Amino acid sequence: MNLSWAIDRQLKNIARAQTGDEKIAFALRTAQLIADEDSEQCRMIGQHGLKLIEQITKKKPTKPVNVLTHCNAGWLAFVDYGSATAPIYAAHDSGLPVHVWVAETRPRNQGSKLTAWELGEHRVPHTIIADSAAGHLMQRGAVDLVIVGTDRTTFRGDVANKIGTYLKALAAKDNNVPFYVALPSSSFDWKLRDGLKEIPIEERSAEEVKQADGWFEGQLVEVRLAAEGSPAANYGFDVTPAHLVTGLITERGVCQANEKSIRALFPEQAQ
Amino acid sequence: MNLSWAIDRQLKNIARAQTGDEKIAFALRTAQLIADEDSEQCRMIGQHGLKLIEQITKKKPTKPVNVLTHCNAGWLAFVDYGSATAPIYAAHDSGLPVHVWVAETRPRNQGSKLTAWELGEHRVPHTIIADSAAGHLMQRGAVDLVIVGTDRTTFRGDVANKIGTYLKALAAKDNNVPFYVALPSSSFDWKLRDGLKEIPIEERSAEEVKQADGWFEGQLVEVRLAAEGSPAANYGFDVTPAHLVTGLITERGVCQANEKSIRALFPEQAQ
Repeated sequence: MNLSWAIDRQLKNIARAQTGDEKIAFALRTAQLIADEDSEQCRMIGQHGLKLIEQITKKKPTKPVNVLTHCNAGWLAFVDYGSATAPIYAAHDSGLPVHVWVAETRPRNQGSKLTAWELGEHRVPHTIIADSAAGHLMQRGAVDLVIVGTDRTTFRGDVANKIGTYLKALAAKDNNVPFYVALPSSSFDWKLRDGLKEIPIEERSAEEVKQADGWFEGQLVEVRLAAEGSPAANYGFDVTPAHLVTGLITERGVCQANEKSIRALFPEQAQ
Repeated sequence: MNLSWAIDRQLKNIARAQTGDEKIAFALRTAQLIADEDSEQCRMIGQHGLKLIEQITKKKPTKPVNVLTHCNAGWLAFVDYGSATAPIYAAHDSGLPVHVWVAETRPRNQGSKLTAWELGEHRVPHTIIADSAAGHLMQRGAVDLVIVGTDRTTFRGDVANKIGTYLKALAAKDNNVPFYVALPSSSFDWKLRDGLKEIPIEERSAEEVKQADGWFEGQLVEVRLAAEGSPAANYGFDVTPAHLVTGLITERGVCQANEKSIRALFPEQAQ
């Protein structure tokens, strides 16, 4: 959503240009504007999310706040702070003890490859887990807060995000763990009402599920994980229904995952 | 549970032997008995589970029944039929159309490596998925029934099984998909009441989460999947609370996952 919004904006601006040179200048200026805005939006998401982490810190001042995340919604995917990671960086930078459970995010391992690397670069304590371990950790009280990103969220608060997000939301609900989605407002889809019925789920190459790519003797190679003749299916995203989402962290503040609360933050969005 | 039960039984028998030769003869005879009993128990689990699949077939006679499973509770882990797979083989062998969603089961991939291979050998249609995809499939109505195995089930019906089972049970509950656990009665723990409080969860080598082992250029190699400096944690099992379990498929029949129903099937188990 965020990506298609940026492309639309670029195309509209480029269309206003008269000459080739103007097109290039317009495109560059728009790109710089988008980058600055993205950085500022993610910074604000960090500040709003920081308050949630501060509230938990007050309840357990001597122990780190454990945040669980899925996939990569960090600065590798955004410009400076990322969305889901922005509150984590804000907390860490302000001296609050925070520890992140990083779900590996099969089949592409964006969690263990990208998010873990980012957090390591930023010296934020973290631990990689199999996607399947998220529920067990919540049952044992080892997760205080879940924060994930989103590819697209409907104006009623249904959240499309990397496959497996829905399972983590179910476990959070079952164990009374707050489940937050961090997003710049450009990730809202103001046309879509019902995420489960209306958001198409991309099927990606089945080979990704049958393989893993990793480092072996200094080079990146693909290994086959699965029985050779067996077919596989690879769904890119799932939809977490709004009722499982505790709140949305946007650049304007935190709102509930329902139409009324979302529109109250973004009144300029015509119905 | 099943394994420790078999070892106890062997040790008791061997203790009755007088000579070294007798010890060997007793051990062999006990092993053969256990194997025959295991095979017969799994066969009966298959027959009882078959009835569940037949019921679903009646509702959708022209389409295959979609069964989702996790990890490997097939004949690679048992003797002839496996536990969770026994109803699937029974259905397939009796001509019912059945298709299996095989969750890969990170970090060791017992699903994509063992279960998928087994099903392929038996020519049962199946599709490997990432563990994270189970919820999405249930939301879309693509799963009729979940059947998993168990390492240990308390006499009140709490089910310890491979990590990730709990998340699949939550998704099944949320989407009204029946969730069954197949087990020979030797997998009941008649001493344990509360699975979440009383079943210890083994932590395995963190390296398993940071790696995958697969085939590369004809050899089995281990590749590193994760950021090099990042720590990982690897929990072997989780506990699915009884209230998420639709029923238990045992060699004596199907019962509900509660003490009364379990003891009604196994009245000889002293309280």
